Amino acid sequence: MNLAKIEELKSWLNSHDIALAYISNPDHIAYYSGYTSDPHERVLALFISATADPFLFTPALEVETAKNSSWQFDVLGYADNENPWQLIVKALNERYDEPKKIAVEKNHLTVDRLEILRSLLLHTDFNFDLTPVIQQSQLRKTTEEITLLKEAGSWADEAFKIGFAAIQAGASEAEITAEIEYQLKRRGVSQMSFDTIVLAGDNAANPHGAPGERKIVPNELVLFDLGVIWKGYCSDATRTVAYQKPTDLQAKIYQIVLEAQLAAQNFVRPGVTAAQIDKVARDVIEKAGYGKYFNHRLGHGIGTTVHEFPSLVEGNDLVIEEGMCFSIEPGIYLPGEVGVRIEDCVHVTPNGCEAFTKTPKELQIITK
Amino acid sequence: MNLAKIEELKSWLNSHDIALAYISNPDHIAYYSGYTSDPHERVLALFISATADPFLFTPALEVETAKNSSWQFDVLGYADNENPWQLIVKALNERYDEPKKIAVEKNHLTVDRLEILRSLLLHTDFNFDLTPVIQQSQLRKTTEEITLLKEAGSWADEAFKIGFAAIQAGASEAEITAEIEYQLKRRGVSQMSFDTIVLAGDNAANPHGAPGERKIVPNELVLFDLGVIWKGYCSDATRTVAYQKPTDLQAKIYQIVLEAQLAAQNFVRPGVTAAQIDKVARDVIEKAGYGKYFNHRLGHGIGTTVHEFPSLVEGNDLVIEEGMCFSIEPGIYLPGEVGVRIEDCVHVTPNGCEAFTKTPKELQIITK
Repeated sequence: MNLAKIEELKSWLNSHDIALAYISNPDHIAYYSGYTSDPHERVLALFISATADPFLFTPALEVETAKNSSWQFDVLGYADNENPWQLIVKALNERYDEPKKIAVEKNHLTVDRLEILRSLLLHTDFNFDLTPVIQQSQLRKTTEEITLLKEAGSWADEAFKIGFAAIQAGASEAEITAEIEYQLKRRGVSQMSFDTIVLAGDNAANPHGAPGERKIVPNELVLFDLGVIWKGYCSDATRTVAYQKPTDLQAKIYQIVLEAQLAAQNFVRPGVTAAQIDKVARDVIEKAGYGKYFNHRLGHGIGTTVHEFPSLVEGNDLVIEEGMCFSIEPGIYLPGEVGVRIEDCVHVTPNGCEAFTKTPKELQIITK
Repeated sequence: MNLAKIEELKSWLNSHDIALAYISNPDHIAYYSGYTSDPHERVLALFISATADPFLFTPALEVETAKNSSWQFDVLGYADNENPWQLIVKALNERYDEPKKIAVEKNHLTVDRLEILRSLLLHTDFNFDLTPVIQQSQLRKTTEEITLLKEAGSWADEAFKIGFAAIQAGASEAEITAEIEYQLKRRGVSQMSFDTIVLAGDNAANPHGAPGERKIVPNELVLFDLGVIWKGYCSDATRTVAYQKPTDLQAKIYQIVLEAQLAAQNFVRPGVTAAQIDKVARDVIEKAGYGKYFNHRLGHGIGTTVHEFPSLVEGNDLVIEEGMCFSIEPGIYLPGEVGVRIEDCVHVTPNGCEAFTKTPKELQIITK
């Protein structure tokens, strides 16, 4: 349970004369309550009142686990044959005396659920959006959070070691992916932050490709994009390595991406904007003549979710501050030929930034 | 691409005088278009017009992959530095002449996205809910779909074999979980339908527990709940086995759950209701005196998503028809002592039902 963050949210509610925050996103429920769960289609909700104690609302199946988590306030449950919304509204009315204004997570709450709540709470105003409030609250990570992000990053470094060691002629992308996840799970990493990506040769030219039966052959590049969830915090990192000697084109593309990545990472410091960081990397790639092959934003925030605010993209004038954490991941993708991406996630320090992953970024050549 | 289902949806639109369906759920986009993707926070959308050709809208990164999928109509893309909603509205106005009524998936579309659309299409009515239309459309599976669900079920049977073989004194839940997923991935299963659950002894008494460092010891039960995604279709099955000789209590609980599971599965046929199936299993467990320890619904639909319509629960008077597919998964959970669940997913046949998983359900005793 993160009492400091709950108090911060309560202050915001009070200063905006809003009775209640309804948090629906399970990642954010975990962030405030310390209770992690994927409710699938069932209802999981956290209600934080401006003045009274908060409560957690979970499927009956989960009440015991929630009570045994670090959450220290009430947990209410509902059985599969009960209507969760009627129980929620009853609790809200009893505990908070028919709240006049409830802020909701507009980028998570679905239209039908808001319609149900509106139909049951006819005099309540649901027009306040919690999304930017929570984004703002999560933007600057605390020292404890950065420690966990570093630990998550170390697991990504471990994953690269396992993956690089698994490269050999005839090994398939899927086999190497399986090896990485297996070794990590055996060592106690219970969850990846997203499906591990291992792509070889021309497959790596699809920045959103999925590993398949494609086997690795000599003289091609292999791209690894991976991360874990460690004590609730995510890592996300990408390395591209060569199996046997790379071709001249592969080596050239790699050097351009590396230069772009390092230029952006060296540029990060408090006071620059998100868009400026994107531009530093993009300029390197454009000057080299490959601008049209770098077809995505430079990066995204990271924390309890693998993609969060802020976006490092043209037009985002957010001013970078100490404690912000985000990815720096330029890439060049020549369709049918070669794909290179290099990514570290960093936290912003008083004078620059520090990466959570330490695996070297100079082109590694795997010979075996 | 599923042209028959697209035509069915177009008929519904026409008969309700609605210009357009906006499908936002990636699982449903895959169902209609054949294009599978997890867009994370980016925008992925499928627009199906009552009269004109549909189009798919994806991040720029994915346009090529989408065009190479089985989808045969237009694919529009947006870059990270573009506003996707302005591009969508421009396309809607150009292609469909400012649609007057757009049906949306109210159980998936988020409040903020609907607000944006409403602000850009001031004269469009968004009050029609696609959710029940798509649920209805997916309810009765075709022969082709049932074939894929059977294949997915066979992979779950494989997973049980791998898991049972991995049981030995000192092996942890996490290690067995890792072994199952590793072996499946090596054999070409790219994705599990949910995080594999292996729980030992008292841990299994938490119906939503997660595998951890708990090691298996003799004379306890081990619960496996798992499934894969195979060619877009999910499996989901549960077996509970004994490591060495079970205690009398374990054996007794197991037999009650087994009797409940078989009674419900034998009861399924066209014409009965979802609630009646739930009651058949629940009656067995209640008569044995353990009703309060079976604290969840009997089952859920399965198809392209692992939990879908219908729910087998008290109060659901849906009449079962041939081709419907759902889980039958009673359980008894004695906190701190023992947990047993047995689950098959079935498809309804003209005279009964057939399970997708064939792993025996009599109590298996692993001795090693």
